[in-house]
Amino acid sequence: MSDFYKDLEGQSKGNQSSLNDALSGLKFNNDGLIPAIAQQHDTGEVLMMAWMNRAAIEETLQTTQVCYWSRSRNNYWRKGESSGNQQKLVSMSTDCDGDTLLLKVNQLGAACHTGRRDCFYNEIKPTGLTISSDPIQDPNQLYSKS
Amino acid sequence: MSDFYKDLEGQSKGNQSSLNDALSGLKFNNDGLIPAIAQQHDTGEVLMMAWMNRAAIEETLQTTQVCYWSRSRNNYWRKGESSGNQQKLVSMSTDCDGDTLLLKVNQLGAACHTGRRDCFYNEIKPTGLTISSDPIQDPNQLYSKS
Repeated sequence: MSDFYKDLEGQSKGNQSSLNDALSGLKFNNDGLIPAIAQQHDTGEVLMMAWMNRAAIEETLQTTQVCYWSRSRNNYWRKGESSGNQQKLVSMSTDCDGDTLLLKVNQLGAACHTGRRDCFYNEIKPTGLTISSDPIQDPNQLYSKS
Repeated sequence: MSDFYKDLEGQSKGNQSSLNDALSGLKFNNDGLIPAIAQQHDTGEVLMMAWMNRAAIEETLQTTQVCYWSRSRNNYWRKGESSGNQQKLVSMSTDCDGDTLLLKVNQLGAACHTGRRDCFYNEIKPTGLTISSDPIQDPNQLYSKS
C-alpha cells in the first residue's frame, strides 16, 4: 500500500503536492478523526489539543476559523461559537507520519473552557500535581452569551 | 463516576494532589495510551506527538529522559536510544480533561526520524501541501550507531 507521507520524507523544502493528495493521505483513526494541537502563533504557547475530521479540516482551511469535531457532543465544534473566544488559523501542518496536525492560531481570550488561557495547567512532578495557572476569564460568563 | 480532573477545574493555582491520584485520573484510550506533545522548552517549537502508557510516564518522571510507547513496534521507545538524540524532560503537564500530556523538553539534535528538527514540516494550505524544512542531520547516519 502506498503511503503518501512516507513517500514525502526524502523530499526537499519547497516540494509541492495537491491539497486532495495531502488530505487523502492523512491517517485518521477508526472514528475518522485526527488529533490537532493548537499553538498560539506568536508566543508559542501550546493552548489545547482537540480532534478534527476531514470536513472540519477543509472548513478550517476555507474560513480560517478553526473548526474541530467534538467527541463528547458528536458534532462540529466551531471554537468560540458560544464563548466568543475564536481561534483564527495562521498555518496548518502535519507531521512525518500524517497522523497529527499542528495548527498555529491567533486565540482570542481563554482557549480553555475553565477560563484559563490554555488547557495545560495541571503540572505533574514526581512529588505530585500542582495547578499552575488561574482563569483569565470567569468561566460562568464565558458560556452565558448565547 | 468521579472525575479527578473535572473536580480540579475550579481549584486555584498552587493547589496540590498526589502523584498517584494524578496518574490514576488520566484518561488513557482503549489501548492504555495517552497522546504526549513534545515542545522545546526554551524556543517553544512543537517537536512531535507520540504516545505514553502509565509505566512510560512514571519512567519519564523518574529518569527525566523521555520514554514513549511505540505503537508500531509495540514496545517502549526511549527517545534517542538508537539515534543519540535524547529528549530530557523539563516539565510535564496534563490538560483540563486529563486526556493529553504536554512535555516541555530539551531535545538534542533532530526530533524527527527524517533528520529534521521537528516532525511538522508538511504545511497544508488551501492551495496544497509544501514541505517547509530540510533535515539538519542525515537520517541514514542517525540510525547507524547501534
